[in-house]
Amino acid sequence: MCEMIDTISGGVCAAQGFRAAGLHVGVKTHAAWKKDLALIVSDAPCAAAAMFTKNVVQAAPIHVTKAHLKTGGIRAIIANSGNANACAPRGEENAKRMCAAAAAAIGCAPEEVLVASTGVIGQTLKVEVIESGAPELVRLLERSDEASDAAAHAIMTTDTVKKEFAVEAVIGGRVVHIGGIAKGSGMIHPNMGTMLCFLTTDCAISQELLQEALKEVVQTTFNRISVDGDTSTNDTCCILANGMAGNPVITTRSDSYIDFVLKLHEVCYLLARSMAKDGEGARHLITCTVRGAASEGQAEVIAKSVISSTLTKAAIFGCDANWGRVLCAMGYSGERFDPERVDVSFASSAGEILVCKNGRGLDFDEDLAKKILTEDEVDIDITIAEGDESCTCWGCDITYDYIKINGDYRT
Amino acid sequence: MCEMIDTISGGVCAAQGFRAAGLHVGVKTHAAWKKDLALIVSDAPCAAAAMFTKNVVQAAPIHVTKAHLKTGGIRAIIANSGNANACAPRGEENAKRMCAAAAAAIGCAPEEVLVASTGVIGQTLKVEVIESGAPELVRLLERSDEASDAAAHAIMTTDTVKKEFAVEAVIGGRVVHIGGIAKGSGMIHPNMGTMLCFLTTDCAISQELLQEALKEVVQTTFNRISVDGDTSTNDTCCILANGMAGNPVITTRSDSYIDFVLKLHEVCYLLARSMAKDGEGARHLITCTVRGAASEGQAEVIAKSVISSTLTKAAIFGCDANWGRVLCAMGYSGERFDPERVDVSFASSAGEILVCKNGRGLDFDEDLAKKILTEDEVDIDITIAEGDESCTCWGCDITYDYIKINGDYRT
Repeated sequence: MCEMIDTISGGVCAAQGFRAAGLHVGVKTHAAWKKDLALIVSDAPCAAAAMFTKNVVQAAPIHVTKAHLKTGGIRAIIANSGNANACAPRGEENAKRMCAAAAAAIGCAPEEVLVASTGVIGQTLKVEVIESGAPELVRLLERSDEASDAAAHAIMTTDTVKKEFAVEAVIGGRVVHIGGIAKGSGMIHPNMGTMLCFLTTDCAISQELLQEALKEVVQTTFNRISVDGDTSTNDTCCILANGMAGNPVITTRSDSYIDFVLKLHEVCYLLARSMAKDGEGARHLITCTVRGAASEGQAEVIAKSVISSTLTKAAIFGCDANWGRVLCAMGYSGERFDPERVDVSFASSAGEILVCKNGRGLDFDEDLAKKILTEDEVDIDITIAEGDESCTCWGCDITYDYIKINGDYRT
Repeated sequence: MCEMIDTISGGVCAAQGFRAAGLHVGVKTHAAWKKDLALIVSDAPCAAAAMFTKNVVQAAPIHVTKAHLKTGGIRAIIANSGNANACAPRGEENAKRMCAAAAAAIGCAPEEVLVASTGVIGQTLKVEVIESGAPELVRLLERSDEASDAAAHAIMTTDTVKKEFAVEAVIGGRVVHIGGIAKGSGMIHPNMGTMLCFLTTDCAISQELLQEALKEVVQTTFNRISVDGDTSTNDTCCILANGMAGNPVITTRSDSYIDFVLKLHEVCYLLARSMAKDGEGARHLITCTVRGAASEGQAEVIAKSVISSTLTKAAIFGCDANWGRVLCAMGYSGERFDPERVDVSFASSAGEILVCKNGRGLDFDEDLAKKILTEDEVDIDITIAEGDESCTCWGCDITYDYIKINGDYRT
């Protein structure tokens, strides 16, 4: 599925009028070679939309970003890694100072800047290093693959690979670009978990429809991945649209709107998938598809329950075709279905094997099953007999490295 | 708290008229030194009550036990480990054959026997080895500490220690005994996860009130522990009461009933706590108490969210006082509370340390925090400002061994 999407280079700089930069300023004190401050700037004011964590405990930058979104005409996003600025002293003050520092260096109002943070919770943000680094960061701004790459790296925490994708399409007679960068190695979960995602587009679209499009797409991409079931205080997914492609502004649910949603979905799908694959310590990307459900919602609840099951994740880590764990996770999902009409297969590039038919175990070729599950990307295909709807969710296995990483995250 | 309960020896044989046995018959093929079949028999017919998993996928023995509970006058419980008899061919037939084998050897009707299984899902139960082992198992029956110990061992799967407790009390002028054995190393979770628990008492109590008492007690003990958030197809907690203590039969919510519930709670509390402590691969027992809640239910939801958080569990494994994980887990629990009025402390026999006050991190002594969290039993104490209610839940850390155990459970 991944291979069927035509991507272009450039990430958040693929769209016209967007420049980016990433730099180490000193928020990550123990790793001077790691970038920790990212900036994305649009030459023109943007329509902006965002989705946030549903956690009751929300980080200060989320409050500030929400307020700034109301003012409109957004010009930039500033984001740091290494400190979440959540449950920390002077959180809102420091988040505002980040916006002000970026605004001063760019030459816009602080309210025209969105802000995000990711990292350790509860420690005071060293905002001074951000303030002193901002002018240099602005000097580095450019529209290039390298600039988007630098920004993508600057928001990473325990991520092992950067997440960056862009696509283009003809919309309303003009070539439109959509690109994005994201981070989110751990704590990813349906309803988002310390993930940051910044999307840019030169498509002309009203703020209202941009928000609708983002909501629709997040629902079927980022909200369908899970790393460990935990959701974070800082999750933010936002998009800036500066209209510089020159297409007629999308203001209704027209064909252009649908084209835009489909392309935005491609970018978010690729980012979400790469986040699940890069779950902390993960060795396997797990794609779980539930078919034959009464509704898409039912299929989603069951698929999420499977990819969130610690026991299933441990079994996949061990390349063990323990489909009993899958049935078990389906069973406690909260959805009703007939367990005597469940089929389960495992599949990968090494083949496919049916291991459970009508709720009963089959005598299957254990060697083939092992071979299938040894691949990096593994599918769990489930069929129930409740209807015709389906849903796919993405997760990863749980490994020794996950525990190592999270056993001593703060130090 | 553990130390404040006076226990007696004898486990399921502490109560008059109960005999037990445990034996290796060959269900666990790879480990001939491991017992895999347990039997508990009462000399007199019993009032019986049970609680089962809420998983939609329920193992065959649960269906059979539910049916037999309706007939009344239960005499025995037979249980095997090594195979869950869930999603397996001829599941109900084999569960009934287990009851019949026990009944024939004891000399009662098959419907007077309850049955339970635990182990791998989806593989055909080798019922023949159980049938040929049953007469020997019946010959071994006795009322002794050793017999209860053998039964406790025979239901273990990945458990590292047996779980067995008993207490006594004067109820209605007679000395009444309540004892139990349990297993449940992994998959334990609120609403129960492959846990089996068999309780016996010589208290005279009606079947109706016995069921009420069990329900009440399970709610505040077994349903407040979590190992990995997964719940199983086989969870069963049942109690047999043969009335041989000679107390006036409890038929109303009298003082005697309350005395009985309190003593039953002691046994179940000790069993639940030891289950959480022996979670697969666990090194720390985590006791999370939430105070200042609007209701006990609110406190319970928040405490369960904390002990179920994979990130919190990994932090405790690393002896890392990462209270941000605790706040985060509270925040996504689904309960509403004011995050600016949350206090969090860590405590153990090595001391107590306040790490978060009014939702903000404190500068605390990291060395002391490490020392506190290095102990085997660790408390997470949370105060919110919503009311006066509280609740305590128990869990464990997640370790490399958890992943090792569950990465290759079937083979």
